[in-house]
Amino acid sequence: MADVTSLLAAIDGTGRDARRGGYTRPVYSTPELELREWFLAEAVSRGLEVEQDRNGILWAWWDLPGAGRRGALVTGSHLDSVPGGGAFDGPLGVASALAAVDRLRAREAAGDLRRNRALAVAVFPEEEGSRFGVACLGSRLLAGAIDPAQALGLRDADGNTFADVSRAHGLDPERMGRDGETLALIGDFVELHVEQGRGLNTEEFTDAAGRGPALAVASSVLGHGRWRLSVHGQGNHAGTTLMEDRADPMVAAAQMVLAVRKVAAARPDARATVGRLEPVPGGTNVIASRVDLWLDVRHPDDATTAAVVETIHGQAQKIAAFEGCTVSLVEESYSGTVHFDDALGRSLARSVARTVPGAPALATGAGHDAGVLAGVVPTGMLFVRNPSGISHSPEEHVEDDDAAAGTAALADALEDLL
Amino acid sequence: MADVTSLLAAIDGTGRDARRGGYTRPVYSTPELELREWFLAEAVSRGLEVEQDRNGILWAWWDLPGAGRRGALVTGSHLDSVPGGGAFDGPLGVASALAAVDRLRAREAAGDLRRNRALAVAVFPEEEGSRFGVACLGSRLLAGAIDPAQALGLRDADGNTFADVSRAHGLDPERMGRDGETLALIGDFVELHVEQGRGLNTEEFTDAAGRGPALAVASSVLGHGRWRLSVHGQGNHAGTTLMEDRADPMVAAAQMVLAVRKVAAARPDARATVGRLEPVPGGTNVIASRVDLWLDVRHPDDATTAAVVETIHGQAQKIAAFEGCTVSLVEESYSGTVHFDDALGRSLARSVARTVPGAPALATGAGHDAGVLAGVVPTGMLFVRNPSGISHSPEEHVEDDDAAAGTAALADALEDLL
Repeated sequence: MADVTSLLAAIDGTGRDARRGGYTRPVYSTPELELREWFLAEAVSRGLEVEQDRNGILWAWWDLPGAGRRGALVTGSHLDSVPGGGAFDGPLGVASALAAVDRLRAREAAGDLRRNRALAVAVFPEEEGSRFGVACLGSRLLAGAIDPAQALGLRDADGNTFADVSRAHGLDPERMGRDGETLALIGDFVELHVEQGRGLNTEEFTDAAGRGPALAVASSVLGHGRWRLSVHGQGNHAGTTLMEDRADPMVAAAQMVLAVRKVAAARPDARATVGRLEPVPGGTNVIASRVDLWLDVRHPDDATTAAVVETIHGQAQKIAAFEGCTVSLVEESYSGTVHFDDALGRSLARSVARTVPGAPALATGAGHDAGVLAGVVPTGMLFVRNPSGISHSPEEHVEDDDAAAGTAALADALEDLL
Repeated sequence: MADVTSLLAAIDGTGRDARRGGYTRPVYSTPELELREWFLAEAVSRGLEVEQDRNGILWAWWDLPGAGRRGALVTGSHLDSVPGGGAFDGPLGVASALAAVDRLRAREAAGDLRRNRALAVAVFPEEEGSRFGVACLGSRLLAGAIDPAQALGLRDADGNTFADVSRAHGLDPERMGRDGETLALIGDFVELHVEQGRGLNTEEFTDAAGRGPALAVASSVLGHGRWRLSVHGQGNHAGTTLMEDRADPMVAAAQMVLAVRKVAAARPDARATVGRLEPVPGGTNVIASRVDLWLDVRHPDDATTAAVVETIHGQAQKIAAFEGCTVSLVEESYSGTVHFDDALGRSLARSVARTVPGAPALATGAGHDAGVLAGVVPTGMLFVRNPSGISHSPEEHVEDDDAAAGTAALADALEDLL
């Protein structure tokens, strides 16, 4: 019976990023395909039947003879990472699902578990949006939460379209998009994930030693979206162009980065970030002709998120005009605040309490495939404690004890729902 | 007899950049290697003997029987480009040299030219520094103006060292660096280049129709250098990290970009630019852990350049500290202001006057291989008019008439020096 720590140890070397630290595992890259192979082998070794659906989602089925697959219980997460991400964001949920299946199969063999339905472990592609720019792309396609034409036209940094990359991966772009047959297979979806903030380490929850509980049940996912600002100026030579003759989009973009911080800081609970910024052409001795910057904005109240983006856009236009530049803003993705299924949440809370009495309910600022699926099927999430609260970074960490508690609680939760 | 416009037309399709526009021809990339093949074929078709020296510089020799090669007259330029650069920056000087050789060979065949020495056309690698970060890398190595160990350790964006890339190109890294034997072959060096600013279009020089002269003789190259600022902060999740918990190096870097502009604008004749900026890891939903930005600073007075960089560094340290970040500054390259050889300049001015009477002497803000070689051999330059003054951009342009005038004047100048 595998434990989650040793399962993760087997992929410890896959996709390491020597330059950034941590892991870089973009969807359908060599490292992510290796992780898919690892998942396939682990699933097959457990007697699970693995299929890839038309949107590139992997499904490992623990069938219940005679019961079919409609309305099954589904758990899982993703294997792709942000550039230079941690070891747990995604893989923890997949490995915990495999380890939980081991426990449930043992209980069934011992006569302690009588199932009413099939169980599947799902692996979603491009959860991070780090290659094609839209997060939760696999679950959005499945759920019909993105126009397939828009998704297929997305390009990675090398200019490859999602359609071409999907085709190279053996998928048929014409069949991608909302998949009612597959959705009908999901009775309930439960995703276990590393917590990505300081949520379990706040004073509200920590004990006398300052240690927070190992697990939480998700209550909601903060509304969030991504917007691209493109600032156009006049490309020119850095040595021959006088300072007063410039229309430098980098200077305008720098002021926009500061405006983003100021606008978000003025609204309680708002978060706004520029983590990606690309000058074009990007040469040291070249005044850029264009700077693209990506804006990530989140707030519990959808109207406030919209207001933050509108304010930033207005300020960006003023900045651009003052610098002799122009700016355009494009929404790349948006998800309103999601509240998880109440009944499923209560069930998860009861199950988790057997491992972690008093495990709290927690809202999260991070987006998840579960947040997308919550719009179409009953969905819930478990969070495992992140001691530093640092995520999307090589410093992201989960303690072995907490990971083990996660597996135990996930197995119990699935048992109670099977 | 080839004219320069038709020579350039043959490479019009090589290295086009669909995303940025213009051309992307980094040193030893497929397009730059194709341009080297084109140069080789053009040289061989003229009966020139082509050699590559130990620093990767190509030499096409028009030998003078019995005269040897020491102290030869050398002309040429480079074929690499900045990302999304124009068609003329570099290739114009190489194509003009080939076209001038045609004219000189015809004059010799007609008995109108009696040479005293050999002529070579040289093509220098990595003039732009767009791949390995140090401009004029080939000429710096040849002249001993860079420590070979430092040069060989430079890395491109994919992490490849200059040593490895040079080795893959058939060079021996252990033999790279100052090359006294090759330097002894250069009696005088003359580089023709597109002018990269508005220098020939200022009121001082333009006629009643607002048109400047087609050519200028270079007087000096503005001192210039490149520095890398690395801003370190705390990488984290863009959704779960509250605004007040952040140490975001992008916010610090944005303030540094504005400080760079302000410091340069306050010093007459100073130019300072951030054209390249790279957040690490660079994900939309990730607060960066580090932002690297590259600083290009130029001023006619070397002490002022140093003072500008020092002031920027001091302000960057204050900004970083205020944002909970740290910053380091590394000089990647530096060249003091260069004054070209007086006697050679007078000779060039006399020759050019036959094509463009009253062609002015012009200082330039752009760096050139000629600026590096000026430190070790008598060197001069001719500039061809750039109507818009725009360079390092797809919009860089040279009119056919001006290019033809450049060839005529270069041929005359070489004839007078042969």
